[in-house]
Amino acid sequence: MSKLKILASACAFVVLSSVAASGLTGDSSPVYGVKVPDGYRHWEVITVAHEAGENNDIRAVLGNDIALKAFRDGTRPFPDGTIIARLAYFYESSPENDQVVTAPQSFVAGKPTNVQISIKDSKKYPETGGWGYGQFENGVTNPSEPLIKTCFACHVKLDPSKDFVFSHYSP
Amino acid sequence: MSKLKILASACAFVVLSSVAASGLTGDSSPVYGVKVPDGYRHWEVITVAHEAGENNDIRAVLGNDIALKAFRDGTRPFPDGTIIARLAYFYESSPENDQVVTAPQSFVAGKPTNVQISIKDSKKYPETGGWGYGQFENGVTNPSEPLIKTCFACHVKLDPSKDFVFSHYSP
Repeated sequence: MSKLKILASACAFVVLSSVAASGLTGDSSPVYGVKVPDGYRHWEVITVAHEAGENNDIRAVLGNDIALKAFRDGTRPFPDGTIIARLAYFYESSPENDQVVTAPQSFVAGKPTNVQISIKDSKKYPETGGWGYGQFENGVTNPSEPLIKTCFACHVKLDPSKDFVFSHYSP
Repeated sequence: MSKLKILASACAFVVLSSVAASGLTGDSSPVYGVKVPDGYRHWEVITVAHEAGENNDIRAVLGNDIALKAFRDGTRPFPDGTIIARLAYFYESSPENDQVVTAPQSFVAGKPTNVQISIKDSKKYPETGGWGYGQFENGVTNPSEPLIKTCFACHVKLDPSKDFVFSHYSP
């Protein structure tokens, strides 16, 4: 192999690795076509929660500027352009912390489980209250159509005043 | 009362109300003199956790830009200027959510309990590993000197590689 070919091959590897690391694979969710929003990990936090049961995760709910403004102002329904990112992690006991506080009471975020994205676009998603959904594992969309259909099926059960959103803002 | 006096009085009320709302009371923690950092609620999230036991809270750990860079780069010890803000809320079951998911498995953030601030300044705090601490309730410092002394007494028990910080970064 020529030096040029080796260099080209190495470059391609670097580029592909960078794409995988950024989570921006360019793919999108079934049904809704929702993609991972650029820079969502830098967004402000709306609230935090622990979901026990089958999920058994601990989660940070982040939002873009439109979402945060709506949460802080109490604006409902949420305006178009609102994006909510729910980042979930394995819910884990922390022996490292428990040893310090000398009690088995510390629970922390382990590895990420998945990221769920909700986007408000009342023109694009009129049949689901104006919301489009996506679930991503390691930045790659979960391709299951039955799974993605559970999103609205669950959110629609909330009181109408909540505009299909579970989270309350934590000051 | 003259119109001017009424206006002046109204302005004073607005200013005082704004100060109270921002949590910037100007007071600072005992021992360390740590104040509530301006704009901390807009900072990025480092991780989330649940502390059971006496605290029984759920918490978001936020950081300023210096803190986030250090966490993401794995820089230890943390550089001077690092500020970590631990926002804790009452850990509460959510009947509202449980009704939708039809299982008692949803735990959410209730009202805030307190905000703890850790500031790295190796010149100012040489006796406590370079860290200064403060605890604030509704933006007002907790004046207890015994309480504030428990901060470092606990953090110092961690493995030295952690530079007296409990949190791990969640991607």
